[in-house]
Amino acid sequence: MTRVANFNAGPAALPVPVLERARDELLEFGKSGMSIMEHSHRGKAYEGVHNEAIALLREILAIPETHHVLFLQGGASLQFAMVPMNFLGAGKSADYINTGHWSERAIEETQLIGKVRIAGSTKVGKTFPRVPKPGEIQVDPAAAYVHTTTNNTIEGTQWQVEPDTGAVPLVADASSDILSRRIDVSRYGLIYAGAQKNIGPSGVVVVIARKDLVASGRKDIPTILRYSTFAEHNSLFNTPPSFAVYMVRNVMAWIKEVGGLPQIEAWNKEKGRLLYGTIDAHPDYYTSPVENESRSLMNVVWRLPSEALEEKFVKDATSAGLVGLKGHRSVGGMRASTYNAVTVDDVKKLCGFMEEFAKKNRP
Amino acid sequence: MTRVANFNAGPAALPVPVLERARDELLEFGKSGMSIMEHSHRGKAYEGVHNEAIALLREILAIPETHHVLFLQGGASLQFAMVPMNFLGAGKSADYINTGHWSERAIEETQLIGKVRIAGSTKVGKTFPRVPKPGEIQVDPAAAYVHTTTNNTIEGTQWQVEPDTGAVPLVADASSDILSRRIDVSRYGLIYAGAQKNIGPSGVVVVIARKDLVASGRKDIPTILRYSTFAEHNSLFNTPPSFAVYMVRNVMAWIKEVGGLPQIEAWNKEKGRLLYGTIDAHPDYYTSPVENESRSLMNVVWRLPSEALEEKFVKDATSAGLVGLKGHRSVGGMRASTYNAVTVDDVKKLCGFMEEFAKKNRP
Repeated sequence: MTRVANFNAGPAALPVPVLERARDELLEFGKSGMSIMEHSHRGKAYEGVHNEAIALLREILAIPETHHVLFLQGGASLQFAMVPMNFLGAGKSADYINTGHWSERAIEETQLIGKVRIAGSTKVGKTFPRVPKPGEIQVDPAAAYVHTTTNNTIEGTQWQVEPDTGAVPLVADASSDILSRRIDVSRYGLIYAGAQKNIGPSGVVVVIARKDLVASGRKDIPTILRYSTFAEHNSLFNTPPSFAVYMVRNVMAWIKEVGGLPQIEAWNKEKGRLLYGTIDAHPDYYTSPVENESRSLMNVVWRLPSEALEEKFVKDATSAGLVGLKGHRSVGGMRASTYNAVTVDDVKKLCGFMEEFAKKNRP
Repeated sequence: MTRVANFNAGPAALPVPVLERARDELLEFGKSGMSIMEHSHRGKAYEGVHNEAIALLREILAIPETHHVLFLQGGASLQFAMVPMNFLGAGKSADYINTGHWSERAIEETQLIGKVRIAGSTKVGKTFPRVPKPGEIQVDPAAAYVHTTTNNTIEGTQWQVEPDTGAVPLVADASSDILSRRIDVSRYGLIYAGAQKNIGPSGVVVVIARKDLVASGRKDIPTILRYSTFAEHNSLFNTPPSFAVYMVRNVMAWIKEVGGLPQIEAWNKEKGRLLYGTIDAHPDYYTSPVENESRSLMNVVWRLPSEALEEKFVKDATSAGLVGLKGHRSVGGMRASTYNAVTVDDVKKLCGFMEEFAKKNRP
């Protein structure tokens, strides 16, 4: 077996010890005589895993008791609809900060349900070269909430600090940078994140939400689309995606084992230093479309001198065991997603390859 | 490793070869250097699995080209809401056939969205001892659709033939008996089924729906809640629950390998013959609350002479490696879920245990 360096944008790399643990107990979880997938979600074995996943998330992210930790399904795409369905009552308006493709998707979905106001945007033509500066956001104090995207997977930009929204609840799509660094959860009304970057496999969404906000949600929407349903039943109102939650448990156990977010954050900073360092060392060859202060430590994007060279780069990199480097089709170029499970060594290999490629392939 | 005989109601037993295949390639799918969980849902490896799962479902269930095969998330509980959201327009009414707990949940959810008419019910006090006879269903010819539950997991009853709904589309929750026998898919407008009984692990829902019905769905609801969104994007509008779909592929490959639905159906009939035979052979000890013509081949329910004996039965059975036999908390008694992955041998062991238990534990 030869494992590659996996720079996929999501679903993405998972830590090898997490996969090995899953493999070793795939036919028998504990001494139970069956796979975790075959356990009832009402039984002690699964319940233990479920509650451990929640407890570890609480511990690792220092989630205060003011907030629920919930497991949902349907991806961030369902969250785009659930947030306004729950919190955007008639006559109210919601503030959205537009920082990229996924912000726009959230905005479009909300417009189907209620009134959207743009509290800030960094769109320039069709691009988003940065996130807003603190003074650029104008929050409507009467807004139901302010929605932001903490990391823009396609554009390669990341907020360095939470926007200040005053008394208005901050709702964040943190799909692509949750658990990559320490955050102050108390500053958020609601955080949602599809698992398939830093949390686990696809098929589960983690929602961290202030209890009073959840309680204030509308009750005239379908039961399964209310956050309160999940909160009242510890995310066991209906059958959860049990294997995905089990994998979340394994990933959280791995994060704790390696030293928690301080260690994860140190690795991510080191990976960013190496990769941006390599880009910056070759300004005539590799160029970044992102302003320095907005650079993401999760999705590093860059261009080569021509599209033909970019195509060759992807092809040669794949042959060298460096996969998933093609940028999103909407923006082109290169993208290395360097989520938690991507190692410093993986990034060193990529940097070495970039050095060589720039030498050998002159435009 | 000792595998038990698993009679869980769902999540439930999975075929051992399916689990072994998943274990063997958990760290590397094919020669790709990564787990199927780590593959992009836009890449060739996952796309191959996704399309093979659909093709195998089509082949095994003989699904005609008039129908889509879709993968959704959120369980049958989300389907309870999506069906009326998509098809129950203002001024319309939907017919529901009430045959048990899960029918009632579907009805309650629909009442939040639109008008429900009961086209038939077999409720007697708080119980549902059978499914309706053909003449007992009164379909409103103007109904948006008729909803039925093909197998009642808690009550242990199962339709033997689809209800005749004339020109009104038949919508069926087939979560607990899909793929247990051959059906005529062309008779259904829409079939939905949570995977965690006969299809795979929890976390994915299979929807089989007539193309014209899907196209007629409402367009003013959230994108992610429209069946048409999944149909137009081959269920890849957003990130699918890729590992769950991979497991569906493996289960379908196993069904085909063992001989398809004719073989599965023969095994299920044999399991039912053995288990109902054992119940019927001890009418003074084991009693069935279900009328003979409505007996389910998927969930076999029975009572013992006292609750104390029922408790002992579950305990002793568990010690003997026969697990998951406690009836649903709402009805009590015993329940053996004998889905496709439960073997004839598993059922023989259970029958042997029942014979012994009846001899040794007189009331």
